[in-house]
Amino acid sequence: MNSAPPRWPGAELRFGVNYTPRRGWFHSWLDFDPDEVAEDFAALAGLGIDHVRCFGLWPLLQPDRGLIRGIDDLATMARIATEQGLGVFVDVLQGHLSSFDFLPSWVSTWHRRNLFTDPEVVGAQAELIGQVSSVLRQVPGALGIGLGNEFIQFAAKRHPESQALTPAQADGWLGRLFNQARRNWPEGVHTHSFDDDLWFDDDQPFTPSHATGFGDLTTVHSWIFGSVGQRHGRDAPELAWFARWLCELAAGWGPGRRIWLQEVGAPQSHLGPARAPRFITETIDILLGARGGGRSPGLDAITWWCSHDVSRKLKDFPALEHTLGLIDTDGNVKESGQAFAESIRRWRATPVAEDLERPALGLGLLTDHTDRSRSSAHGDAFAGWVRAAREGAVDQLAPTAPARRTSTPHNASSNDR
Amino acid sequence: MNSAPPRWPGAELRFGVNYTPRRGWFHSWLDFDPDEVAEDFAALAGLGIDHVRCFGLWPLLQPDRGLIRGIDDLATMARIATEQGLGVFVDVLQGHLSSFDFLPSWVSTWHRRNLFTDPEVVGAQAELIGQVSSVLRQVPGALGIGLGNEFIQFAAKRHPESQALTPAQADGWLGRLFNQARRNWPEGVHTHSFDDDLWFDDDQPFTPSHATGFGDLTTVHSWIFGSVGQRHGRDAPELAWFARWLCELAAGWGPGRRIWLQEVGAPQSHLGPARAPRFITETIDILLGARGGGRSPGLDAITWWCSHDVSRKLKDFPALEHTLGLIDTDGNVKESGQAFAESIRRWRATPVAEDLERPALGLGLLTDHTDRSRSSAHGDAFAGWVRAAREGAVDQLAPTAPARRTSTPHNASSNDR
Repeated sequence: MNSAPPRWPGAELRFGVNYTPRRGWFHSWLDFDPDEVAEDFAALAGLGIDHVRCFGLWPLLQPDRGLIRGIDDLATMARIATEQGLGVFVDVLQGHLSSFDFLPSWVSTWHRRNLFTDPEVVGAQAELIGQVSSVLRQVPGALGIGLGNEFIQFAAKRHPESQALTPAQADGWLGRLFNQARRNWPEGVHTHSFDDDLWFDDDQPFTPSHATGFGDLTTVHSWIFGSVGQRHGRDAPELAWFARWLCELAAGWGPGRRIWLQEVGAPQSHLGPARAPRFITETIDILLGARGGGRSPGLDAITWWCSHDVSRKLKDFPALEHTLGLIDTDGNVKESGQAFAESIRRWRATPVAEDLERPALGLGLLTDHTDRSRSSAHGDAFAGWVRAAREGAVDQLAPTAPARRTSTPHNASSNDR
Repeated sequence: MNSAPPRWPGAELRFGVNYTPRRGWFHSWLDFDPDEVAEDFAALAGLGIDHVRCFGLWPLLQPDRGLIRGIDDLATMARIATEQGLGVFVDVLQGHLSSFDFLPSWVSTWHRRNLFTDPEVVGAQAELIGQVSSVLRQVPGALGIGLGNEFIQFAAKRHPESQALTPAQADGWLGRLFNQARRNWPEGVHTHSFDDDLWFDDDQPFTPSHATGFGDLTTVHSWIFGSVGQRHGRDAPELAWFARWLCELAAGWGPGRRIWLQEVGAPQSHLGPARAPRFITETIDILLGARGGGRSPGLDAITWWCSHDVSRKLKDFPALEHTLGLIDTDGNVKESGQAFAESIRRWRATPVAEDLERPALGLGLLTDHTDRSRSSAHGDAFAGWVRAAREGAVDQLAPTAPARRTSTPHNASSNDR
């Protein structure tokens, strides 16, 4: 019964893609077609990637609190990926994807209740996480689960239905769900994910302690339409440094943890129409040390967002979502896809080792996370760091002021181990 | 191509059931199984009914504003009903069912916008209504569509995400959607539906003018857990009179219109465990004139809620929803089902004609609907009417004070014809 899938991390640097189905986007789960998935994965394997990150939709997997269905389709998708030689991660609680929230009726409107603290809700989430874990564990190429894509957005103050939550309650939620995944799939590589609110927003109840204290890897999602794009503007040279900044920050907050850059994309909102391929090449080169400073400390994997452009037949997406793909809606590999494939080839051929002696980035931030906004790319710390790095001051990649203790530290004591 | 389905109303009184699938409730659309539907419909046909009312789920039929899918399954369900000799109505925009709201992601949280007035939302709703109408028109037993089950709840002040709406805007929404249904299915019997807020709540922007001015029939949904149950209490003799009160009110507001009692049920919240069968018998007897006063004016059809008990494996339903069925979760006809079947047999054998000369119920309510709460079963008008009726004062069934004009009447001028 124990199929003992390969565990991340290994010696090799990993490259992968976030899978956005070419036909029907994630609504394709409603009319699941293994042949279409196989076609999509064959095209992705052709880019030279080694893994995909896949996404279920919560309301389809658990339409009633007492009804779980559709996991077989997840497993079928994972098996198809395996047949293409791809490893597979599956995020469970979507939750949130490309501006859309997917919440089942039993937590909405008349049935609205806290998604992180209501015992019945969290119990049901754990049940779903557990069942998905048990089923995927049997698929040879399946590597692990993600709790849910950027689920912490539901706790952001800026969310239209923001859920009240404290950091300690966030501990509890993460602990409960990771415990369940671990129990049902002990050898899986399980993670959670978040937008950069976690790193930059002083009010976000999920903190860098949660990023580095829960799950098997620290994940990073790098989107330049946030702080860096707002401060430095379209096509600014700083944009390609942002992913590395986040990875360095992640290493600074969690020394010794392995890091997965789980989402990074090239949004046309902040890149000229022809700039995406160059942005991809530059971002990866900077992450892996072509500009000096070695490979970003702890970095094990880069997973591009996303596999396929969102069809323009689908409505209400932010404009940038229609052009994020490495492959277009007709199934043709775009120049972006060629750039990503070329980067994979090049860096697999000549990998650059990490400099394990190099101290991690530290900005002297408070350990209660109340001044983490200082590390936002809105601020001067980022701008100065990029300036120094671009001038070749490699050492400046890692200013070494350690985090400062506060008198009332938040104690993220829970852990899933 | 024009299959010219039979039109309601005809000479015969109609009896039907609201179809709640035995396995998986409406979530069964996610794993649609025609054999299970056929089994359910065969059991329902055995009760002697002539029609079913069926329900799609909006987020499954239109998961993206630009993506409509799943209508073939609706048509398959309608064909299976036809094979059992049953006519079929299909409600499209669910919308709302048994305390649960079903809203697609593109009108929720980050994408929230007015469900009745946003041009893109209403345009998409019309597109869906049109496509469903075109497809169902081809099914011999399909009779018509309903816009959406009690969709007006989204405009109720008491709704947790209440949508701002004026009666004139409600005119516009109904007009647009009925026009579309009519264009795509000219000979269908198309209706809209609402809870009794429309009749009783002075603040509900959908008014009795909308009930009687749009669609081919005036529909009535009768639920005793509302005003009548609150005022008169569990097992009170008044409860069985409530459906007739609503039908009389509907006739009073729309003289000459045909009426469809589209939902009436026996909730255990207000009926002792063994009282449901008797309540069914009494309610139907009172509606059809067994207590005198003839058949409720204009009444053409009675459609019971619902076909099957909701499985207790499904969670978060109001308790009463688990016992509303005529058939239990094992597929056995309950005493309630036997009572309904017996009522059908008895009233088909000895129908009571309407007294077309009898004036409709009128309470002297204002035509701008600002005092419609006076007709609520919370009030004395209902209590007095029941008292008189129970004492055999048949004439009292129809107090004849006409509606009073207001100086600033709301002009529900739009119509779908």
